[in-house]
Amino acid sequence: MTNRILNDYISVDCVIFGYNDNELQVLLVERTLTKESTKEIEFTDLTLTGNHIYEDETIEDAAYRVLYDRTGLDNVYLEQFKAFAHPNRLKKEKDRKWLIHDGRDPEQRIVSIGFFSLISTRNIIVESKCGIAKWVPLSEIGELAFDHNQIVEEALKALRSKIKHEPIGFELLPEKFTLTELQHVYEVILGTELDKRNFRKKIGRMKYLVPLDEKQKGVAHKPARLYMFSRDVYEKTRKEMFDFTV
Amino acid sequence: MTNRILNDYISVDCVIFGYNDNELQVLLVERTLTKESTKEIEFTDLTLTGNHIYEDETIEDAAYRVLYDRTGLDNVYLEQFKAFAHPNRLKKEKDRKWLIHDGRDPEQRIVSIGFFSLISTRNIIVESKCGIAKWVPLSEIGELAFDHNQIVEEALKALRSKIKHEPIGFELLPEKFTLTELQHVYEVILGTELDKRNFRKKIGRMKYLVPLDEKQKGVAHKPARLYMFSRDVYEKTRKEMFDFTV
Repeated sequence: MTNRILNDYISVDCVIFGYNDNELQVLLVERTLTKESTKEIEFTDLTLTGNHIYEDETIEDAAYRVLYDRTGLDNVYLEQFKAFAHPNRLKKEKDRKWLIHDGRDPEQRIVSIGFFSLISTRNIIVESKCGIAKWVPLSEIGELAFDHNQIVEEALKALRSKIKHEPIGFELLPEKFTLTELQHVYEVILGTELDKRNFRKKIGRMKYLVPLDEKQKGVAHKPARLYMFSRDVYEKTRKEMFDFTV
Repeated sequence: MTNRILNDYISVDCVIFGYNDNELQVLLVERTLTKESTKEIEFTDLTLTGNHIYEDETIEDAAYRVLYDRTGLDNVYLEQFKAFAHPNRLKKEKDRKWLIHDGRDPEQRIVSIGFFSLISTRNIIVESKCGIAKWVPLSEIGELAFDHNQIVEEALKALRSKIKHEPIGFELLPEKFTLTELQHVYEVILGTELDKRNFRKKIGRMKYLVPLDEKQKGVAHKPARLYMFSRDVYEKTRKEMFDFTV
Protein backbone atom coordinates (compact mmCIF):
# COMPACT_ATOMS: atom_id res chain seq x y z
CA MET A 1 0.00 0.00 0.00
CA THR A 2 1.30 3.49 -0.83
CA ASN A 3 2.13 5.89 1.95
CA ARG A 4 -1.14 7.59 2.83
CA ILE A 5 -1.27 11.26 3.80
CA LEU A 6 -3.38 12.42 6.74
CA ASN A 7 -5.50 15.51 6.23
CA ASP A 8 -4.60 17.95 8.99
CA TYR A 9 -7.93 19.76 9.42
CA ILE A 10 -10.61 17.05 9.16
CA SER A 11 -10.88 14.44 11.91
CA VAL A 12 -13.43 11.93 13.20
CA ASP A 13 -14.28 11.26 16.83
CA CYS A 14 -16.18 8.16 17.88
CA VAL A 15 -18.31 8.02 21.01
CA ILE A 16 -18.26 4.27 21.59
CA PHE A 17 -21.10 3.34 23.95
CA GLY A 18 -21.11 0.10 25.87
CA TYR A 19 -23.45 -1.32 28.49
CA ASN A 20 -21.93 -2.82 31.64
CA ASP A 21 -23.10 -3.39 35.23
CA ASN A 22 -26.39 -1.69 34.44
CA GLU A 23 -24.57 1.42 33.30
CA LEU A 24 -23.99 3.17 30.01
CA GLN A 25 -20.26 3.49 29.47
CA VAL A 26 -17.99 5.21 26.98
CA LEU A 27 -14.67 3.92 25.69
CA LEU A 28 -11.98 6.55 26.37
CA VAL A 29 -8.26 6.69 25.64
CA GLU A 30 -5.49 7.97 27.89
CA ARG A 31 -3.55 10.99 26.67
CA THR A 32 -0.25 11.59 28.44
CA LEU A 33 2.05 14.53 27.83
CA THR A 34 5.65 14.06 29.01
CA LYS A 35 8.26 16.82 29.13
CA GLU A 36 10.89 16.19 26.42
CA SER A 37 13.72 17.31 28.72
CA THR A 38 13.02 15.63 32.06
CA LYS A 39 10.64 12.97 30.70
CA GLU A 40 8.40 13.73 33.68
CA ILE A 41 4.67 13.53 33.10
CA GLU A 42 3.07 16.94 32.62
CA PHE A 43 -0.49 15.65 32.56
CA THR A 44 -2.63 12.63 31.78
CA ASP A 45 -6.26 12.88 30.77
CA LEU A 46 -8.77 11.14 28.55
CA THR A 47 -9.98 11.62 25.00
CA LEU A 48 -12.50 9.99 22.71
CA THR A 49 -11.22 7.52 20.16
CA GLY A 50 -10.56 9.53 17.04
CA ASN A 51 -8.10 10.39 14.33
CA HIS A 52 -7.56 12.57 11.30
CA ILE A 53 -8.80 11.23 7.98
CA TYR A 54 -6.57 10.18 5.12
CA GLU A 55 -6.69 12.35 2.01
CA ASP A 56 -7.98 9.40 -0.01
CA GLU A 57 -10.49 8.26 2.62
CA THR A 58 -14.15 9.09 3.28
CA ILE A 59 -15.14 10.18 6.79
CA GLU A 60 -17.21 7.00 7.19
CA ASP A 61 -14.22 4.82 6.31
CA ALA A 62 -12.09 6.82 8.73
CA ALA A 63 -14.61 6.25 11.53
CA TYR A 64 -14.74 2.50 10.86
CA ARG A 65 -10.92 2.43 10.76
CA VAL A 66 -10.65 4.20 14.13
CA LEU A 67 -13.22 1.85 15.61
CA TYR A 68 -11.46 -1.22 14.26
CA ASP A 69 -8.00 -0.10 15.39
CA ARG A 70 -9.37 0.46 18.85
CA THR A 71 -11.72 -2.48 19.35
CA GLY A 72 -10.74 -5.04 16.74
CA LEU A 73 -14.40 -5.06 15.69
CA ASP A 74 -15.79 -4.34 12.27
CA ASN A 75 -19.40 -4.46 11.15
CA VAL A 76 -20.67 -2.66 14.28
CA TYR A 77 -23.41 -0.06 14.63
CA LEU A 78 -21.89 3.32 13.76
CA GLU A 79 -23.73 6.52 13.01
CA GLN A 80 -22.63 10.02 12.08
CA PHE A 81 -24.53 12.50 14.26
CA LYS A 82 -22.89 15.93 14.21
CA ALA A 83 -19.92 18.02 13.09
CA PHE A 84 -17.89 20.02 15.61
CA ALA A 85 -15.94 23.08 14.52
CA HIS A 86 -16.29 25.72 17.23
CA PRO A 87 -13.53 28.35 16.87
CA ASN A 88 -12.42 27.65 20.47
CA ARG A 89 -12.61 23.87 20.51
CA LEU A 90 -8.81 23.42 20.63
CA LYS A 91 -7.95 26.48 22.68
CA LYS A 92 -7.64 25.05 26.21
CA GLU A 93 -4.05 25.38 27.52
CA LYS A 94 -3.57 21.61 27.89
CA ASP A 95 -4.78 21.02 24.35
CA ARG A 96 -2.54 23.73 22.88
CA LYS A 97 0.48 22.18 24.63
CA TRP A 98 -0.53 18.76 23.33
CA LEU A 99 -0.90 19.97 19.74
CA ILE A 100 2.42 21.81 19.81
CA HIS A 101 4.13 18.76 21.33
CA ASP A 102 2.52 16.78 18.52
CA GLY A 103 4.09 19.16 15.98
CA ARG A 104 0.75 20.69 15.02
CA ASP A 105 -0.38 24.31 14.76
CA PRO A 106 -2.81 25.04 17.63
CA GLU A 107 -4.24 27.94 15.63
CA GLN A 108 -5.29 25.67 12.75
CA ARG A 109 -9.03 25.14 12.85
CA ILE A 110 -9.98 21.47 12.87
CA VAL A 111 -13.46 20.20 12.12
CA SER A 112 -14.27 16.89 13.75
CA ILE A 113 -17.12 14.72 12.53
CA GLY A 114 -18.79 12.94 15.46
CA PHE A 115 -19.99 9.35 15.23
CA PHE A 116 -21.57 7.25 17.91
CA SER A 117 -21.27 3.51 18.11
CA LEU A 118 -23.08 0.88 20.15
CA ILE A 119 -21.26 -2.33 20.94
CA SER A 120 -21.83 -5.30 23.14
CA THR A 121 -18.93 -4.87 25.55
CA ARG A 122 -18.57 -8.57 26.24
CA ASN A 123 -16.66 -9.33 23.07
CA ILE A 124 -14.19 -6.53 22.70
CA ILE A 125 -10.49 -6.11 23.31
CA VAL A 126 -9.78 -2.57 24.41
CA GLU A 127 -6.03 -3.02 24.74
CA SER A 128 -4.40 -2.06 21.47
CA LYS A 129 -1.32 -0.50 19.95
CA CYS A 130 -2.82 2.99 20.09
CA GLY A 131 -2.57 3.49 23.83
CA ILE A 132 -4.56 2.46 26.89
CA ALA A 133 -8.33 2.55 26.43
CA LYS A 134 -10.87 1.99 29.18
CA TRP A 135 -14.59 1.92 29.76
CA VAL A 136 -15.78 4.86 31.86
CA PRO A 137 -19.38 5.08 33.13
CA LEU A 138 -21.10 8.21 31.80
CA SER A 139 -21.69 9.39 35.36
CA GLU A 140 -17.95 9.29 36.12
CA ILE A 141 -16.57 11.13 33.09
CA GLY A 142 -14.48 14.12 34.18
CA GLU A 143 -13.06 16.89 32.00
CA LEU A 144 -12.02 15.39 28.69
CA ALA A 145 -9.58 16.71 26.10
CA PHE A 146 -10.62 19.35 23.57
CA ASP A 147 -14.43 19.65 23.27
CA HIS A 148 -14.96 15.95 23.86
CA ASN A 149 -17.34 16.44 26.80
CA GLN A 150 -19.64 18.32 24.46
CA ILE A 151 -19.27 15.63 21.78
CA VAL A 152 -20.28 12.96 24.33
CA GLU A 153 -23.25 15.08 25.40
CA GLU A 154 -24.45 15.53 21.82
CA ALA A 155 -23.92 11.84 21.08
CA LEU A 156 -26.12 10.95 24.05
CA LYS A 157 -28.82 13.31 22.78
CA ALA A 158 -28.64 11.70 19.34
CA LEU A 159 -28.74 8.21 20.87
CA ARG A 160 -31.76 9.08 23.04
CA SER A 161 -33.75 10.48 20.19
CA LYS A 162 -32.81 7.57 17.91
CA ILE A 163 -33.61 4.81 20.38
CA LYS A 164 -37.15 6.14 20.76
CA HIS A 165 -37.82 5.34 17.12
CA GLU A 166 -35.43 2.61 16.06
CA PRO A 167 -34.56 -0.66 17.76
CA ILE A 168 -30.86 0.06 18.22
CA GLY A 169 -30.78 -0.77 21.94
CA PHE A 170 -30.23 -4.40 21.01
CA GLU A 171 -26.75 -3.56 19.76
CA LEU A 172 -25.68 -3.10 23.39
CA LEU A 173 -26.87 -6.55 24.45
CA PRO A 174 -25.56 -10.04 23.80
CA GLU A 175 -27.30 -11.96 21.02
CA LYS A 176 -29.76 -13.50 23.47
CA PHE A 177 -31.28 -11.42 26.27
CA THR A 178 -34.24 -11.23 28.63
CA LEU A 179 -36.97 -8.59 28.49
CA THR A 180 -35.79 -7.28 31.85
CA GLU A 181 -32.30 -6.75 30.45
CA LEU A 182 -33.81 -4.97 27.46
CA GLN A 183 -35.90 -2.70 29.68
CA HIS A 184 -32.78 -1.83 31.71
CA VAL A 185 -30.94 -0.78 28.56
CA TYR A 186 -33.77 1.57 27.62
CA GLU A 187 -34.04 2.94 31.15
CA VAL A 188 -30.31 3.59 31.36
CA ILE A 189 -30.15 5.33 28.00
CA LEU A 190 -33.28 7.40 28.55
CA GLY A 191 -32.31 8.10 32.14
CA THR A 192 -35.79 7.30 33.37
CA GLU A 193 -37.74 4.36 34.79
CA LEU A 194 -40.25 2.73 32.47
CA ASP A 195 -43.47 1.15 33.64
CA LYS A 196 -43.00 -2.61 33.26
CA ARG A 197 -46.52 -3.40 32.04
CA ASN A 198 -46.40 -0.55 29.56
CA PHE A 199 -42.99 -1.61 28.32
CA ARG A 200 -44.09 -5.22 27.86
CA LYS A 201 -47.14 -4.04 25.93
CA LYS A 202 -44.94 -2.04 23.56
CA ILE A 203 -42.53 -4.94 23.28
CA GLY A 204 -45.48 -7.10 22.31
CA ARG A 205 -45.91 -5.02 19.17
CA MET A 206 -42.32 -5.55 18.04
CA LYS A 207 -42.59 -8.38 15.52
CA TYR A 208 -38.82 -8.26 15.17
CA LEU A 209 -38.29 -9.26 18.79
CA VAL A 210 -38.25 -13.04 18.61
CA PRO A 211 -38.95 -15.17 21.72
CA LEU A 212 -36.66 -18.20 21.89
CA ASP A 213 -37.50 -21.64 23.16
CA GLU A 214 -34.70 -21.14 25.67
CA LYS A 215 -34.27 -19.71 29.17
CA GLN A 216 -31.57 -18.05 31.29
CA LYS A 217 -29.03 -20.36 32.88
CA GLY A 218 -27.30 -20.15 36.25
CA VAL A 219 -29.52 -17.53 37.83
CA ALA A 220 -30.75 -17.55 41.43
CA HIS A 221 -34.28 -16.49 40.55
CA LYS A 222 -36.73 -18.26 38.27
CA PRO A 223 -34.99 -18.24 34.84
CA ALA A 224 -36.59 -15.87 32.32
CA ARG A 225 -37.20 -16.53 28.63
CA LEU A 226 -34.51 -15.38 26.21
CA TYR A 227 -35.21 -13.23 23.14
CA MET A 228 -33.38 -12.30 19.96
CA PHE A 229 -33.58 -9.25 17.71
CA SER A 230 -34.29 -10.13 14.09
CA ARG A 231 -32.94 -7.52 11.71
CA ASP A 232 -34.63 -9.33 8.81
CA VAL A 233 -38.07 -9.01 10.32
CA TYR A 234 -37.33 -5.40 11.23
CA GLU A 235 -36.24 -4.44 7.72
CA LYS A 236 -39.32 -6.18 6.30
CA THR A 237 -41.79 -4.50 8.67
CA ARG A 238 -40.30 -1.01 9.01
CA LYS A 239 -41.59 0.06 5.61
CA GLU A 240 -45.19 -0.42 6.70
CA MET A 241 -44.65 1.62 9.82
CA PHE A 242 -45.58 5.26 10.06
CA ASP A 243 -45.68 6.76 13.51
CA PHE A 244 -46.74 10.13 14.60
CA THR A 245 -46.71 10.06 18.33
CA VAL A 246 -44.06 12.73 18.85
CA MET B 1 -16.95 45.37 12.28
CA THR B 2 -13.41 44.10 11.65
CA ASN B 3 -12.58 42.44 8.35
CA ARG B 4 -13.54 38.81 8.80
CA ILE B 5 -11.52 36.01 7.24
CA LEU B 6 -13.23 33.10 5.49
CA ASN B 7 -11.96 29.62 6.28
CA ASP B 8 -11.09 27.99 2.96
CA TYR B 9 -11.78 24.33 3.78
CA ILE B 10 -14.98 24.35 5.89
CA SER B 11 -18.27 25.34 4.26
CA VAL B 12 -21.98 24.98 4.95
CA ASP B 13 -24.65 24.04 2.42
CA CYS B 14 -28.33 24.60 3.13
CA VAL B 15 -31.06 22.51 1.53
CA ILE B 16 -33.94 24.97 1.83
CA PHE B 17 -37.21 23.10 1.39
CA GLY B 18 -40.41 24.88 0.48
CA TYR B 19 -43.91 23.62 -0.31
CA ASN B 20 -45.67 25.03 -3.38
CA ASP B 21 -48.40 23.79 -5.74
CA ASN B 22 -48.57 20.50 -3.85
CA GLU B 23 -44.87 19.91 -4.46
CA LEU B 24 -41.77 19.86 -2.32
CA GLN B 25 -39.31 22.36 -3.74
CA VAL B 26 -35.71 23.33 -3.08
CA LEU B 27 -34.24 26.82 -3.30
CA LEU B 28 -31.31 26.75 -5.75
CA VAL B 29 -28.88 29.43 -6.94
CA GLU B 30 -27.62 30.01 -10.47
CA ARG B 31 -23.90 29.58 -11.03
CA THR B 32 -22.57 31.10 -14.25
CA LEU B 33 -18.99 30.86 -15.46
CA THR B 34 -17.99 33.44 -18.07
CA LYS B 35 -14.72 33.39 -20.03
CA GLU B 36 -12.46 36.23 -18.84
CA SER B 37 -11.28 36.97 -22.36
CA THR B 38 -14.41 36.88 -24.51
CA LYS B 39 -16.91 37.31 -21.67
CA GLU B 40 -18.97 34.56 -23.31
CA ILE B 41 -20.83 32.23 -20.98
CA GLU B 42 -19.06 28.88 -20.54
CA PHE B 43 -21.81 27.28 -18.52
CA THR B 44 -24.70 28.00 -16.17
CA ASP B 45 -25.95 25.51 -13.63
CA LEU B 46 -27.44 25.41 -10.14
CA THR B 47 -26.03 25.02 -6.65
CA LEU B 48 -27.42 24.86 -3.14
CA THR B 49 -27.24 28.00 -1.06
CA GLY B 50 -24.00 27.77 0.84
CA ASN B 51 -20.79 29.52 1.76
CA HIS B 52 -17.53 29.07 3.59
CA ILE B 53 -17.54 29.84 7.29
CA TYR B 54 -15.71 32.74 8.89
CA GLU B 55 -12.77 31.86 11.12
CA ASP B 56 -14.54 33.41 14.11
CA GLU B 57 -17.92 31.84 13.32
CA THR B 58 -19.61 28.58 14.35
CA ILE B 59 -21.05 26.38 11.60
CA GLU B 60 -24.56 27.01 12.95
CA ASP B 61 -24.08 30.78 12.74
CA ALA B 62 -22.72 30.38 9.22
CA ALA B 63 -25.80 28.38 8.18
CA TYR B 64 -28.16 31.00 9.64
CA ARG B 65 -26.15 33.73 7.89
CA VAL B 66 -26.39 31.98 4.52
CA LEU B 67 -30.10 31.45 5.01
CA TYR B 68 -30.66 35.07 6.00
CA ASP B 69 -28.59 36.48 3.13
CA ARG B 70 -30.59 34.37 0.74
CA THR B 71 -34.13 34.62 2.07
CA GLY B 72 -34.15 37.62 4.39
CA LEU B 73 -35.59 35.30 7.04
CA ASP B 74 -34.17 34.60 10.45
CA ASN B 75 -35.64 32.39 13.15
CA VAL B 76 -36.55 29.61 10.71
CA TYR B 77 -36.34 25.84 11.16
CA LEU B 78 -32.77 24.80 10.42
CA GLU B 79 -31.13 21.50 11.24
CA GLN B 80 -27.65 20.09 10.73
CA PHE B 81 -27.99 16.60 9.25
CA LYS B 82 -24.68 15.41 7.75
CA ALA B 83 -21.12 16.32 6.82
CA PHE B 84 -19.85 15.84 3.27
CA ALA B 85 -16.15 15.36 2.57
CA HIS B 86 -15.78 12.73 -0.14
CA PRO B 87 -12.32 12.95 -1.74
CA ASN B 88 -13.95 13.42 -5.16
CA ARG B 89 -16.71 15.86 -4.27
CA LEU B 90 -15.05 18.79 -6.11
CA LYS B 91 -13.46 16.85 -8.94
CA LYS B 92 -15.99 17.27 -11.77
CA GLU B 93 -14.50 19.27 -14.66
CA LYS B 94 -17.05 22.09 -14.38
CA ASP B 95 -16.39 22.42 -10.67
CA ARG B 96 -12.62 22.47 -11.09
CA LYS B 97 -12.95 25.25 -13.69
CA TRP B 98 -15.24 27.15 -11.34
CA LEU B 99 -12.87 26.85 -8.39
CA ILE B 100 -9.85 27.92 -10.45
CA HIS B 101 -11.80 30.86 -11.90
CA ASP B 102 -12.69 31.69 -8.29
CA GLY B 103 -8.96 31.73 -7.41
CA ARG B 104 -9.21 28.56 -5.36
CA ASP B 105 -7.16 25.36 -5.38
CA PRO B 106 -9.33 22.53 -6.80
CA GLU B 107 -7.09 20.00 -5.05
CA GLN B 108 -7.85 21.43 -1.61
CA ARG B 109 -10.24 19.16 0.22
CA ILE B 110 -13.33 20.99 1.46
CA VAL B 111 -15.70 19.57 4.05
CA SER B 112 -19.23 20.90 3.79
CA ILE B 113 -21.68 20.65 6.67
CA GLY B 114 -25.21 20.04 5.39
CA PHE B 115 -28.24 21.71 6.94
CA PHE B 116 -31.84 21.43 5.89
CA SER B 117 -34.38 24.14 6.40
CA LEU B 118 -38.16 24.21 6.11
CA ILE B 119 -39.83 27.49 5.28
CA SER B 120 -43.26 28.63 4.33
CA THR B 121 -42.57 29.84 0.80
CA ARG B 122 -45.31 32.45 0.83
CA ASN B 123 -43.32 34.99 2.77
CA ILE B 124 -39.87 34.91 1.28
CA ILE B 125 -37.93 37.08 -1.11
CA VAL B 126 -35.57 34.93 -3.16
CA GLU B 127 -34.07 37.77 -5.17
CA SER B 128 -30.96 39.01 -3.39
CA LYS B 129 -27.52 40.43 -3.92
CA CYS B 130 -25.93 36.99 -4.05
CA GLY B 131 -27.24 35.96 -7.45
CA ILE B 132 -30.49 34.62 -8.85
CA ALA B 133 -32.19 32.02 -6.68
CA LYS B 134 -35.25 30.03 -7.67
CA TRP B 135 -37.55 27.34 -6.35
CA VAL B 136 -37.14 24.05 -8.20
CA PRO B 137 -39.49 21.11 -7.61
CA LEU B 138 -37.58 18.07 -6.35
CA SER B 139 -38.77 16.08 -9.35
CA GLU B 140 -37.23 18.60 -11.76
CA ILE B 141 -33.75 18.98 -10.26
CA GLY B 142 -31.08 18.17 -12.84
CA GLU B 143 -27.36 17.76 -12.30
CA LEU B 144 -26.26 20.23 -9.63
CA ALA B 145 -22.79 21.61 -8.91
CA PHE B 146 -20.29 19.64 -6.83
CA ASP B 147 -21.95 16.83 -4.80
CA HIS B 148 -25.12 18.85 -4.25
CA ASN B 149 -27.43 16.19 -5.71
CA GLN B 150 -26.21 13.82 -3.03
CA ILE B 151 -26.62 16.49 -0.36
CA VAL B 152 -30.24 17.04 -1.44
CA GLU B 153 -30.85 13.28 -1.39
CA GLU B 154 -29.43 12.94 2.13
CA ALA B 155 -31.38 15.98 3.30
CA LEU B 156 -34.60 14.39 2.04
CA LYS B 157 -33.76 11.18 3.89
CA ALA B 158 -33.15 13.15 7.08
CA LEU B 159 -36.37 15.12 6.60
CA ARG B 160 -38.41 11.93 6.02
CA SER B 161 -37.10 10.21 9.09
CA LYS B 162 -37.54 13.35 11.21
CA ILE B 163 -41.08 14.12 10.10
CA LYS B 164 -42.21 10.66 11.19
CA HIS B 165 -41.38 11.52 14.78
CA GLU B 166 -41.52 15.28 15.14
CA PRO B 167 -44.17 17.75 14.00
CA ILE B 168 -41.92 19.76 11.68
CA GLY B 169 -44.24 19.56 8.67
CA PHE B 170 -46.04 22.62 10.00
CA GLU B 171 -43.01 24.75 9.18
CA LEU B 172 -43.87 24.39 5.50
CA LEU B 173 -47.42 25.66 5.92
CA PRO B 174 -48.83 29.10 6.62
CA GLU B 175 -49.77 29.81 10.24
CA LYS B 176 -53.32 28.60 9.68
CA PHE B 177 -54.03 25.52 7.57
CA THR B 178 -56.59 22.80 6.93
CA LEU B 179 -56.14 19.12 7.79
CA THR B 180 -56.21 18.32 4.08
CA GLU B 181 -53.31 20.71 3.47
CA LEU B 182 -51.43 19.10 6.36
CA GLN B 183 -52.02 15.61 4.97
CA HIS B 184 -50.74 16.74 1.56
CA VAL B 185 -47.52 18.01 3.11
CA TYR B 186 -46.93 14.64 4.75
CA GLU B 187 -47.82 12.74 1.58
CA VAL B 188 -45.49 14.86 -0.53
CA ILE B 189 -42.57 14.52 1.86
CA LEU B 190 -43.05 10.80 2.44
CA GLY B 191 -43.77 10.22 -1.23
CA THR B 192 -46.76 8.06 -0.41
CA GLU B 193 -50.52 8.38 -0.06
CA LEU B 194 -51.88 8.25 3.48
CA ASP B 195 -55.25 6.82 4.41
CA LYS B 196 -57.46 9.79 5.33
CA ARG B 197 -59.27 8.13 8.24
CA ASN B 198 -56.02 6.83 9.67
CA PHE B 199 -54.37 10.20 9.28
CA ARG B 200 -57.25 11.98 11.01
CA LYS B 201 -57.10 9.47 13.86
CA LYS B 202 -53.40 10.18 14.37
CA ILE B 203 -54.02 13.91 14.08
CA GLY B 204 -56.61 13.53 16.81
CA ARG B 205 -53.87 12.49 19.22
CA MET B 206 -51.80 15.62 18.57
CA LYS B 207 -52.73 17.90 21.45
CA TYR B 208 -50.46 20.52 19.92
CA LEU B 209 -52.61 20.78 16.81
CA VAL B 210 -55.16 23.43 17.77
CA PRO B 211 -58.51 23.70 15.94
CA LEU B 212 -59.50 27.33 15.36
CA ASP B 213 -62.96 28.79 15.43
CA GLU B 214 -62.33 29.86 11.85
CA LYS B 215 -62.80 28.44 8.35
CA GLN B 216 -61.23 28.73 4.90
CA LYS B 217 -62.26 31.72 2.82
CA GLY B 218 -62.82 32.04 -0.91
CA VAL B 219 -62.89 28.36 -1.77
CA ALA B 220 -65.30 26.75 -4.24
CA HIS B 221 -66.01 23.73 -2.02
CA LYS B 222 -67.45 23.74 1.49
CA PRO B 223 -64.88 25.70 3.56
CA ALA B 224 -62.86 23.51 5.95
CA ARG B 225 -61.87 24.35 9.52
CA LEU B 226 -58.48 25.96 10.03
CA TYR B 227 -55.87 24.68 12.50
CA MET B 228 -52.72 26.01 14.12
CA PHE B 229 -49.61 24.30 15.45
CA SER B 230 -48.86 25.20 19.07
CA ARG B 231 -45.18 24.89 19.87
CA ASP B 232 -45.94 25.58 23.55
CA VAL B 233 -48.26 22.61 23.84
CA TYR B 234 -45.79 20.47 21.90
CA GLU B 235 -42.86 21.35 24.16
CA LYS B 236 -45.02 20.66 27.22
CA THR B 237 -46.32 17.31 26.01
CA ARG B 238 -43.27 15.89 24.22
CA LYS B 239 -41.58 14.99 27.51
CA GLU B 240 -44.37 12.59 28.39
CA MET B 241 -44.14 10.88 25.04
CA PHE B 242 -42.20 7.71 24.48
CA ASP B 243 -42.86 5.85 21.30
CA PHE B 244 -41.60 2.57 20.16
CA THR B 245 -43.45 1.82 17.02
CA VAL B 246 -40.43 1.66 14.72
